[in-house]
Amino acid sequence: MSKNDKKVNAIIILIGNEILSGRTQDANVVFLSKWLNELGVRVEEVRVILDEQEVIIKCINEVRKNFKYIFTTGGIGPTHDDITSRSIAKAFNLSYGYNKEAYDILEKYYKPGEFNDGRKKMAKMADKASLIYNPSSGAPGFIVENVYCLPGIPLILKSMVDGLKNKIKGGKKILSETISINTVESEIAKPLEDVQNKFSNVEIGSYPFFKSGKVGVSIVMSSTEKNQIEDCAKQIQNFIQQKKIQII
Amino acid sequence: MSKNDKKVNAIIILIGNEILSGRTQDANVVFLSKWLNELGVRVEEVRVILDEQEVIIKCINEVRKNFKYIFTTGGIGPTHDDITSRSIAKAFNLSYGYNKEAYDILEKYYKPGEFNDGRKKMAKMADKASLIYNPSSGAPGFIVENVYCLPGIPLILKSMVDGLKNKIKGGKKILSETISINTVESEIAKPLEDVQNKFSNVEIGSYPFFKSGKVGVSIVMSSTEKNQIEDCAKQIQNFIQQKKIQII
Repeated sequence: MSKNDKKVNAIIILIGNEILSGRTQDANVVFLSKWLNELGVRVEEVRVILDEQEVIIKCINEVRKNFKYIFTTGGIGPTHDDITSRSIAKAFNLSYGYNKEAYDILEKYYKPGEFNDGRKKMAKMADKASLIYNPSSGAPGFIVENVYCLPGIPLILKSMVDGLKNKIKGGKKILSETISINTVESEIAKPLEDVQNKFSNVEIGSYPFFKSGKVGVSIVMSSTEKNQIEDCAKQIQNFIQQKKIQII
Repeated sequence: MSKNDKKVNAIIILIGNEILSGRTQDANVVFLSKWLNELGVRVEEVRVILDEQEVIIKCINEVRKNFKYIFTTGGIGPTHDDITSRSIAKAFNLSYGYNKEAYDILEKYYKPGEFNDGRKKMAKMADKASLIYNPSSGAPGFIVENVYCLPGIPLILKSMVDGLKNKIKGGKKILSETISINTVESEIAKPLEDVQNKFSNVEIGSYPFFKSGKVGVSIVMSSTEKNQIEDCAKQIQNFIQQKKIQII
């Protein structure tokens, strides 16, 4: 729908075979999406890709022109399968080597004698990358142009995004309101569509749910315009009342 | 890595703004990935995309040449924001209308007088689509060429995939073995890389974890060759023993 064209957009790219194999349940998308939404950035796509160099390079070069912000998670640790930093450097055709600031941070973080090769690897990144500081475990993430690289471990990722707030320039915040009702989708499909057709600036989503043995529908209205959401909600409440459907 | 070139691959596409907004936590990827893996199909990518017609068409036409199987979830319900069926028809340049078999199924499923327009919409799909039966709530999914369209609600999706088993022709099953150890990644990065370099047919992943206040690493070996995994595991166990690291 063209109504969202002017919003500031982002894509989240999860790099890691462990999610694709079903071994690990993703726990970063909900957090990052909500956090970006608060900053006025709309996540328009998520991809989960293999940790293979050609795959990462192809993906980054494909998306970095279409999204204002690209967030990657995973693959910036010390082991052989952590190839995000090197792959990002290659995608941007930049040299890959020690970042002095990252090296200093890590050297101070570890006890003398414990700063081994695996740990040193975490200081390697694209030339001219700027750092995303890590208050919980030392090893920083980094930014190359519009690509923001974060670790995959949710606890560490969460501790790092606060430092990014001032670097993200969002648009108008996307507001939303939810009306949950005690019915099934097909009972409200027609009047809901009629309301959607009247409000081109509001995105209306309809989501069935099952909770404690009850079925219901959550109607979610999203827009950057608060008054539009309010007007839209009124019209939805009207047909709900007419149909004698209970609000939950 | 070229070692996986010959595997039968798949992509999962989640269609739905509710996941992108962070409102809903995905609960289908882990299930579908494990189920496909059992059938010898390797999920090589996941995308979450907006429920906008042009976005769906572009995505489907981009991926359907590169993956043997495409699974979509979401957007096949009765409301205005359920546009997967129509978009898939457009992507394949096929006409979109009632599927007689689906119409009959739904007509029988609902009580007389309750088969309203919203419900009828769930019988609309691309010409020549074949059905994926739904033992839990009537409305079928469908298949167009190599694109398999399933609903977004996890309980219903799970009830439908059993009927697909005979339609999926997988390759060799991807086997895996995990060794979990009481250390941090950087302590084993070097010897683990050495083992990886010796086993081109085994994909070795290293995943740090935090559990009950303890840190650890899970080393996951994946391959279609059981004996290769066993040989690889032996070499990993050797260096673990030498380094006096505890297996958890």
